[in-house]
Parts: sequence; C-alpha cells; structure tokens
Amino acid sequence: MSSEKLLEFFQPESVAIIGATPKEGKVGRAILENFIKKFKGRIYPVNPQYDEILGLKCYRNIKDLPESPDLAVIAIPAQHVPSALMELGEKGCKAAIIISGGFRETGTQEGAKLENELVEISKKYNIRVIGPNCIGVFDNWSGVDTFFTTKMRRPPRGYVGFISQSGAFATALMDWMAYHEIGVSRAISYGNKIDVDDVDLLEFLGEDDKTRVILMYVEGLKENRGKSFIETARKVTLKKPVIVYKAGKTSRGGRAASSHTAALAGDYSVYRAAFKQAGVIEAESFDEMMDVVRIFLDQPLMRGNRVYVVTDAGGVGVMLTDALTKNGFELPITPPDLKEQLKRILPPHCIVENPIDLTGDTDDERYIRVLDLLAKRDDVDAIVVVALPQVPGLKGTFIEYLAKLKKECNKPIVALTIGSEVSMETARKLRENGITVFESPERLANALKALRDYSLYVIKHMVD
Amino acid sequence: MSSEKLLEFFQPESVAIIGATPKEGKVGRAILENFIKKFKGRIYPVNPQYDEILGLKCYRNIKDLPESPDLAVIAIPAQHVPSALMELGEKGCKAAIIISGGFRETGTQEGAKLENELVEISKKYNIRVIGPNCIGVFDNWSGVDTFFTTKMRRPPRGYVGFISQSGAFATALMDWMAYHEIGVSRAISYGNKIDVDDVDLLEFLGEDDKTRVILMYVEGLKENRGKSFIETARKVTLKKPVIVYKAGKTSRGGRAASSHTAALAGDYSVYRAAFKQAGVIEAESFDEMMDVVRIFLDQPLMRGNRVYVVTDAGGVGVMLTDALTKNGFELPITPPDLKEQLKRILPPHCIVENPIDLTGDTDDERYIRVLDLLAKRDDVDAIVVVALPQVPGLKGTFIEYLAKLKKECNKPIVALTIGSEVSMETARKLRENGITVFESPERLANALKALRDYSLYVIKHMVD
Repeated sequence: MSSEKLLEFFQPESVAIIGATPKEGKVGRAILENFIKKFKGRIYPVNPQYDEILGLKCYRNIKDLPESPDLAVIAIPAQHVPSALMELGEKGCKAAIIISGGFRETGTQEGAKLENELVEISKKYNIRVIGPNCIGVFDNWSGVDTFFTTKMRRPPRGYVGFISQSGAFATALMDWMAYHEIGVSRAISYGNKIDVDDVDLLEFLGEDDKTRVILMYVEGLKENRGKSFIETARKVTLKKPVIVYKAGKTSRGGRAASSHTAALAGDYSVYRAAFKQAGVIEAESFDEMMDVVRIFLDQPLMRGNRVYVVTDAGGVGVMLTDALTKNGFELPITPPDLKEQLKRILPPHCIVENPIDLTGDTDDERYIRVLDLLAKRDDVDAIVVVALPQVPGLKGTFIEYLAKLKKECNKPIVALTIGSEVSMETARKLRENGITVFESPERLANALKALRDYSLYVIKHMVD
Repeated sequence: MSSEKLLEFFQPESVAIIGATPKEGKVGRAILENFIKKFKGRIYPVNPQYDEILGLKCYRNIKDLPESPDLAVIAIPAQHVPSALMELGEKGCKAAIIISGGFRETGTQEGAKLENELVEISKKYNIRVIGPNCIGVFDNWSGVDTFFTTKMRRPPRGYVGFISQSGAFATALMDWMAYHEIGVSRAISYGNKIDVDDVDLLEFLGEDDKTRVILMYVEGLKENRGKSFIETARKVTLKKPVIVYKAGKTSRGGRAASSHTAALAGDYSVYRAAFKQAGVIEAESFDEMMDVVRIFLDQPLMRGNRVYVVTDAGGVGVMLTDALTKNGFELPITPPDLKEQLKRILPPHCIVENPIDLTGDTDDERYIRVLDLLAKRDDVDAIVVVALPQVPGLKGTFIEYLAKLKKECNKPIVALTIGSEVSMETARKLRENGITVFESPERLANALKALRDYSLYVIKHMVD
C-alpha cells in the first residue's frame, strides 16, 4: 500500500512547484525548467510575487490552485515550509518533495522544531513526504525531475533505479552514468527522510516494471527499520538484484556519516549479516558497484561455477585465471573430447587448455569456431572472452556472432579488452551486442562473482 | 657491468634488421618502418632478396655490412636464426633482439635444440640476447622500437619503465598508456629470456636517468635468479619505486602460466616475502598497478600517516573516510586551533571536522582558504581534495592555486572527482597541475597507501 501511494511522486498528472521563480541560478527556477522540459502533465508554479513565470500562469498561493496537485515540490525558506505543507494538506495534496534545507541537519533547536512540525502536519493530513533537505526525485520515464543542479548531465532512459542517502553523490553518479551511457529509470535522494525512506523506496522500485536493477547508497537506516528492510529486501531480491554500497563501515567513517547526514551508521557487521540474509549484493567499492550494475543489466543468471577463458594474449589469460580462482570459480582443465575438437580446428601452436590461447596471430574465425564449441556445452557455465585488438588479424567481426551465441545459449558471456581507441571501439561493439566489457581482469572476476552468488541465491530460493 | 652492456639495446648508434622486408603485414617490414620513423642512427636492412628496401640500401648478408652494428634485430624463420647469430658474432656485434618464435615455447625437441644452439652461440661470441620469441624493446627516447604491432598507439615520452614477461600484455598496456597520456621511457618484453632477463633489465632501468618509476609484469623468475632479484631490487628501490604485478599467484594460475611462457610461477608466498624484503610494491590488480604508477609519477614522498579530506560532497567524504581508515591511515579529528581558524573562514553550515565539508554551495575561494591552512601545517601529511564539479559555484580556479601549494608544502595532494565531461575537464586540469586524480575513493586510498608504505620504507632505510 505504501508503495502504491509513492506512485504520485513518480507518475503524477499535476505538480505544484512552491517557490518557482524566474530568477536565474535559483533552485526554484532550475526545478521549474526541468519540469517544463520533460514533464507531460500540468505544472503550477506558486509564488506570491508573480502572475506568470516562463510562460506559465503563476499562482499567488496554494489555495488558489485550480485543483489539488498530485505532487507538490517545495523550495522556499525553511520557516515557511510548515505553513505551505499545511495549505497543501488542506487542498488535498498527498505527496510532497521538500527540497528546502534548514531543519534538523543544522543541528539547531529551531531546525529540529521546524522539522517536528513537518512530521506532525504530514501525519495530520496524510501527506507522504520526501525530504526535507534533499534533491528529491529524478524520474527518467515520467519527467519528474527535482535535481536542481544544472551542471549534471542526465543519463539515458533505462532500467537502473538508484536510492541515495547523499544528494551530491546521487548528482555525481547520474552525471557519471550519463557519460558511460548507463540507463536510469528513477533516482531518489531523500535527505532528512522524515517520512519516505530507503525501505519504502526499495519496495516501490521492487514493484516498478521500469526498474530491473536497484542500487542503493546507504549511510544508515532509521533505527526501527532494520526488520522492514530485511523483509522488503528479501522479497525484492527474488525479483531483481539489489546492490548496496554501505558508507560508514569503519567507526571513523561512521563518525563522518553522523556529521554528514546525522545518520547512525550503526554496526557494519549487523548490516553485512542483514544483506547476506536478504540476498542483497554488497558492493565494497565505487568500481565494484558500477561493474556489478553493468553485469546485471546485460547478463542472464549463471547456473554453475565453471568458467572458460578464450584469449589472444596468454598473459592476460594467466591474470584472469588467478582472479577467477581467487573468487572461487572453477576453470576446468579442458576435457579430452573438447581438447580433440579444439585441436582439429586450431593451428598446433594454439593452447587448448583452459585458458584457450588463440595467440597473437589469431583472426576472427578462430574465435567464432572456439566460442561455438563452448557455448553449446552443458559443462560450461560462463565464457570470458579476451580480445586485445592490437593483434593484427582481429577485425572484430566475431562480435556479432557472439551476440547471437549468447542469446542461444543463455549463458553469461563477458569480455576483456585493454588499450586505446581501437580497444574502446571493440568495447563499444561488444557492449552494443550485450557483452559486458572490462579492462581489468580482477574487476571482471569480481563482478562475475556477484552474478554467480546472486544466481545461486535466487535458484536456491526459487526451489525452496 | 651487465647493466652497462645493455646500453647497446637502448642507445645503439647503428642497427641491423635481419629479415627486413618491403612486404606489407610482415614483422620485418613493421620493425624497419619503426626505425625509419624515429631512430636517429644508422639503419642496415639485411635480406638476401633485396638491394633496397623503403629507400634504404639493403645488404644481402650480414658479412657485407659496412660495420659491426651496435644492435641487431632478428626476424627470420627459427631454423635460420642460429647461423645469423653466429655471423653477427663473427662481425663483432654484441647485442641482439631475437623476435622470431619457434623455439622452446613450441614444446618440441626441435625448438628446444634450436634454442640451446642460440645459448651456445651467444656465450661463445659474448653477444647479449633479448628473446627469442619476443616483441623486444620499445625505447621512447632513442627510437629503438621492435614492437611490431602496427595497431598499437605509442605512449608519449616519459618516465615509466616497463618490463613484461607477456608480449601481448606489453603491447596492450602501451596502447592503454597512450590513451591515458602516461609517459613511457622504455618498455621491454623478453620472451624466452635465454640471456637478458627481468633482473638485468631491472638493474638497467634502476640506473637509467630517464626512468623514474619501474613497472614489472612477472610470471616467474628464472630458478637461479631469486637472490639476484632481491639484491638488485633492494638497491633500485632506494632510488625509485618498483611496482610488480605477479601473475600466476594461484596454483591454477601457475598452471596457466606454464602453458603460456613455460615459466615456473613458483610459490607465490615466496615472491611476496621477497617483494616485501626488497621494498618492491606489489600491485594486486590491473587498476592498482596503473593507479600506483600514476601516484608515484606525480607525488612527493609522504612523511607520515595523517590525512585530511576536503570535500564538497559529504557522502564522498564518508566513503573516503572508510577507505582511508581501512588502509591504515589516520584521519585526525580537527584540533581546536585549526577548528577555530576554519570556523572563522567558513560559513556556519560547513563542517569543520575532518572530512572538512565545504558543502554544495561552495565556491573556489572556500577551497583555497582551507587548503592554504592545511598545506602549511606540520601535522598534515597528505591532503585529499574532493571536487565534484556538478556543484554550481565551483569553477575550478582553485586548481592552479593547488599546484602552487603542492610545490611549496611538498606533500602529496591527490583529488577525487566523479561525473561526465565537466568532471573529466576538472580531472584534466588537476593532472596538468601535478595532482593525481581518481574517481573511486577506494582506489585513491589504495594508491595513497602504496605511496605511504614506500615512503616509510625509503625513509627508514635512508636513516639506517
């Protein structure tokens, strides 16, 4: 039910922007522009000083609005927020994003008092609130966008849902994802979370059909929400992967978190246990977080632990063998029947052990033949393709064939390439064909491990 | 002494290319072209079929050469290599790079026999040999370049020396470094290393004034060279950092290495102990390897363990606090006198604890004031600057000031930024001003740890 209610934050038909303004550089201007640019519903700027802003009729106060807006966005000085929220409640509005800061996060009595007033009003009028002191919601499908930094590029439409306790990090990450062309469904940063919190949002994104992978940046859950988090996460993770980056892991980091968002970062070991229990994937670094997101966007579940590596560079094959082994994968020694087949199709100087080394004089045809054999075998659970394109004979024509193979065999196929423009081009082609690409053997192995662990978790719990 | 002799590989005045050819796509053509393009000395193509190649007089055989070449590059079929090497010996040549494959790496008796002949001849005539079965030498200062892949971009001239047991990886890494604009002095891949090996090359690069940072990719040292490696490394690491990526760490990886280069990857724990004893920095991943190279290129030694973080994004401050703490750094709680000073120069909503959070409404001036205070203090050993440029007020003008500060205080100053073009631009400016830039808090902390550990090693052994 709570999850249904949140729909008004993400798919409103009308929105009132309290504090909309034509003044350049102001938050109320940036947000209004966002909505004008992308939101298809009705937009009501509210500001006592204007009759019109950017070509839209402006309302002097909330009472005058021609309807109760599905969503209100509030960006006015803190001391005026409680009365605005009350007026919205009177009007019948049920969802408000409060961008304004100046509440509990200031550490002042006045701020705490104002925040308590907001809590009271939201309860009295049954208004769901995101914020205060937040950047709110960026919805790539509906055009709701209260992220007020104009210097942030918007990522393409897509399927990653992001919940962030840090507004600045959310902004930077959206900008980063735009650059790396990773599609986003909805991103939310909830600031002081007097009402809607991580758990509500996790539940919402869990049911959201535009969201296939959920990513969370968490400093600390509300104290009484641990149990709900586990229960919710356990349901959601059976439907889609949930990746969490927990900040405030060390006690020194916890202290920094409490200065930052007044979050109680809590005992990290408790979080770890909860994540594990609920099938949540914990990313331990920025790189891991994004690698894992990408592998989940592109790859099917991995049904076992046996990986084959096909390479044109022996050294990189060794690096991968180490990294995969360290992550608990099995690299089977090529069985006799497969060895026979490989020997028939490869020149004698190629190495038919796993890693299968096509060597530096390979062409695309060698890749195609070998990958064809591997994809069809039941004793191969995932394939890692190393394609260093500095090799003279490699044109990259095998990549389209690889995409076809991947669909047919429904196994994870990931790739590694290292280099300059020629390798970027190979990577781009691979990505377009649904192959997740890495340049670091260790990061590849690490991301594949997350895919395997999650796959085994889901398969186990599906059976149960 | 051995190191002096190697000079002829890197600074020859004349070079003979045995197997030079005008035929497109051939190794002997690619190598000849490399030399014509960049080598300032005398070039002698040798091939019985031509009188002239690419405008150069071609010699029908080695005997006919007008002088004994300082360096010979051999790229002809394996069975002809021994006689060519002998003729070079007769001629008085003292250094040969044997590109040709077809020796011990084939696993055949014939190959092993041919390789043994090479060993005998090189001893008899006192010719130093790099190879066979290698890509040889890429020297960015002298123009010696036997890396025969035309699809590899060449990195800019610079100060990283690279020794690689894998030719393909060396090629890919040069290409990668070209893209990332990391300058290289000399790169060497030695193939079957019948003579010149990792230890000789380490000694050479240790004394080479164009090389400031040494990077090594090692699968396995020759069995009898462990002690020499430690002795040599111990000397070199007091002069410049040596970073090693050891492949074949796991027993499964060791098996892959032995298929690849017939290297005995050996017991990893023995290598680890040796690295530690000799002050060698071990990079455990591709990313770490390159991060560590970059931090050493740009940063002075770190004289203690106390790090301050200045940020415009609280969340990233928390992430960094975790990562630095995990790597054993101390993030001192801001002492009272500094707190007073910070409070005087910062608006009240900024956080003066370490991390010092300038918050999302910061401008460049705030950074300058705070960094100025930190740089001058004796109780600050390194500064980490987080500059998320999505923040509206940040123009990046503080960066030049930062460069000046870094020079004055002679402390490591590193930075973190995350995002799209706007952040790439910030990163570029930072790099140009000698600030090492990261986008991952964990990688930043990890690289800084390598700098600290190496610094403490050097300081300790200088005192001893």
